[in-house]
Amino acid sequence: MKIKTLAIIFFTLLTCEICLAQTEVVEDFKVSATTQEGKEFPQVNSEGNVRVQISAPEARKVQLDIGAVKYDLKKDENGIWIGESAPQDEGFHYYQLNIDGASVPDPGSLYFYGASRWGSGIEVPAKDEEKYALKNVPHGEVREHLYFSKTNNSMRRCFIYTPPGYNENINKRYPVLYLQHGGGENETGWSNQGHANLIMDNLIADGKANPFIIVMDNGSWRMPAQARPAQGERPKGPWPPEGWADNFKNTLLNDIIPMVDSNYRTVADIQHRAMAGLSMGGMQTRVITLADPDVFSYVGMFSGGSISTEDISKSPDFKENVKLFFVSYGSRELENRREGFGGDPKENTEALKQAGINTYFYVSPQTAHEWQSWRRSLYEFAQLLFK
Amino acid sequence: MKIKTLAIIFFTLLTCEICLAQTEVVEDFKVSATTQEGKEFPQVNSEGNVRVQISAPEARKVQLDIGAVKYDLKKDENGIWIGESAPQDEGFHYYQLNIDGASVPDPGSLYFYGASRWGSGIEVPAKDEEKYALKNVPHGEVREHLYFSKTNNSMRRCFIYTPPGYNENINKRYPVLYLQHGGGENETGWSNQGHANLIMDNLIADGKANPFIIVMDNGSWRMPAQARPAQGERPKGPWPPEGWADNFKNTLLNDIIPMVDSNYRTVADIQHRAMAGLSMGGMQTRVITLADPDVFSYVGMFSGGSISTEDISKSPDFKENVKLFFVSYGSRELENRREGFGGDPKENTEALKQAGINTYFYVSPQTAHEWQSWRRSLYEFAQLLFK
Repeated sequence: MKIKTLAIIFFTLLTCEICLAQTEVVEDFKVSATTQEGKEFPQVNSEGNVRVQISAPEARKVQLDIGAVKYDLKKDENGIWIGESAPQDEGFHYYQLNIDGASVPDPGSLYFYGASRWGSGIEVPAKDEEKYALKNVPHGEVREHLYFSKTNNSMRRCFIYTPPGYNENINKRYPVLYLQHGGGENETGWSNQGHANLIMDNLIADGKANPFIIVMDNGSWRMPAQARPAQGERPKGPWPPEGWADNFKNTLLNDIIPMVDSNYRTVADIQHRAMAGLSMGGMQTRVITLADPDVFSYVGMFSGGSISTEDISKSPDFKENVKLFFVSYGSRELENRREGFGGDPKENTEALKQAGINTYFYVSPQTAHEWQSWRRSLYEFAQLLFK
Repeated sequence: MKIKTLAIIFFTLLTCEICLAQTEVVEDFKVSATTQEGKEFPQVNSEGNVRVQISAPEARKVQLDIGAVKYDLKKDENGIWIGESAPQDEGFHYYQLNIDGASVPDPGSLYFYGASRWGSGIEVPAKDEEKYALKNVPHGEVREHLYFSKTNNSMRRCFIYTPPGYNENINKRYPVLYLQHGGGENETGWSNQGHANLIMDNLIADGKANPFIIVMDNGSWRMPAQARPAQGERPKGPWPPEGWADNFKNTLLNDIIPMVDSNYRTVADIQHRAMAGLSMGGMQTRVITLADPDVFSYVGMFSGGSISTEDISKSPDFKENVKLFFVSYGSRELENRREGFGGDPKENTEALKQAGINTYFYVSPQTAHEWQSWRRSLYEFAQLLFK
């Protein structure tokens, strides 16, 4: 009898283990914040599994392509394909569908610019999503601003966040943060998927940040054709090559900043000007603030490398002028850190602190090289600015 | 010899006719203004044929779905499908791809909200595209504005166009046009695919229009479930049913207009307020301006019906207050006019003129119920406002 009971327990445990091995998903799926209004899919459950559905009666194979993994969907008797991914990190992720070899946007999602294309994105609910939730608090505006750039001899577009109160307090002047996107993204990223405006509205409503203007422009950089290494070859010399950020630096310093200072009620001096960026935008921030250390007092690099004491020794005004140097990463990035960002960012930042610079090092828990790390970075950085 | 020459001419003509019957397209395709930067397709040629291309090596059938017609694409040896539509009208059109039965956005196009979904759109070059071209002239801004609506007990979003000079001339106050999208569209339509901002910037630069603010909100109307006729049945009583525009009317009059007048430098009186809309938005303009004729002095209905002398007799203040009543259609709409818009729009408008109302009737040449008609309508209407 005792042996029989033990046997039952053993087989019950074995069966459960098989269940888990099949990775049954938790059936509490809901439409995502990035699902189109009126559409039923994509959905996300409490574990971060992403479920998609599409009608494709004559297709042979349909896949969900997210986080560099392709998940096969299954077809029902009505030709509707459905399936889900493994759990994804909290926050925002780009994805696409693959239908018989064609990579296409999911017709159920909203679309975002990243990975060098307009395409699908999905929002996985996060424990700290209150930071960027749309609430009934005073809101600033995001303005599409068109202007002529002499540097590029062309019309350009940027987005300008003006904080709540900007329209009413017509004699008040504001500091400015120049905030850059990453590689393969553009001037729409920080407001569309970054929710920079909602982060600021909520911080200001909570009394945690001083109101300031944010300028989000396009810093895209393409390697000149003649500098491109041949297929399969490694680039010669330092990478990215000397001068890679020059076009955006010239556009920023000669076109964008003067345009902003003449069109908006800014305080047009170094004490009231900040620059930050994510990934490639962080690397641009590094190059520009080291080369021109008399323009910005506050400097932020989100998942975009760091600055060493050696860099500072070549740019003495940086130490003199910069009131805050902020570096951040997603925790998963530090665990699996990519090379080429110039030394360990935490050690570098600590060394700058020892050298007398006011530094701040932030790690976003349980996130990688992705938007949740950068939303949180802005949330932290914004609270330290212009104080 | 003469017979032989005639025979050659005859066969040459015959061959040409066969060529034409195969409808060979003119090979001067170029990427469209709505093709994503860096993508090679979709393309449009000088005849308005739209050509798409997509890699789908394992697909059995791929189609281009535009203008309610599906065109089969052909596959090459590399699994790339390519093909084109019949010539499309000048201007903007929604479209999609169909891959083995799945309707999806074209990964090469920009995306627009219409037909009740975010999806692909294509711009066919127009002879009058200078009206909405991006030029090096002073530009206004399009501002994303978030606000709380008591009527709906929810946060809402609208887009606000402020004209060039608004940021500089801080003591100047401006008239306001409330401009509505059509059914299945939303608050993004007039700036994204309508280019309302560029139309205004160009008109103002040319001295053809007075600067004014434009408010573009979401007037979407969904039939209450209990009012919906059963599948296959016709709706009972008048259509749309009494009260269908009430929610948007209340939101506009009680939330949007007070919010705009308190946040922007408007002249907050009837003489400086206009309302217009396209299709469903025109029908809303009709209902709202007849029911509340003391709010707007300028009224525009683009492809959205008209107002009869009988309507006016029930709303005497309309005749008293309205300085301009503008009605427009695409020429193809008048040729194949749909029923249910309440009489012939030209006759109705002519009758109002006879009754002493200042009316304007505009027909957009060679266009149908589509954005080119509405861009041109705004271009004409804007020149008549607040003068």
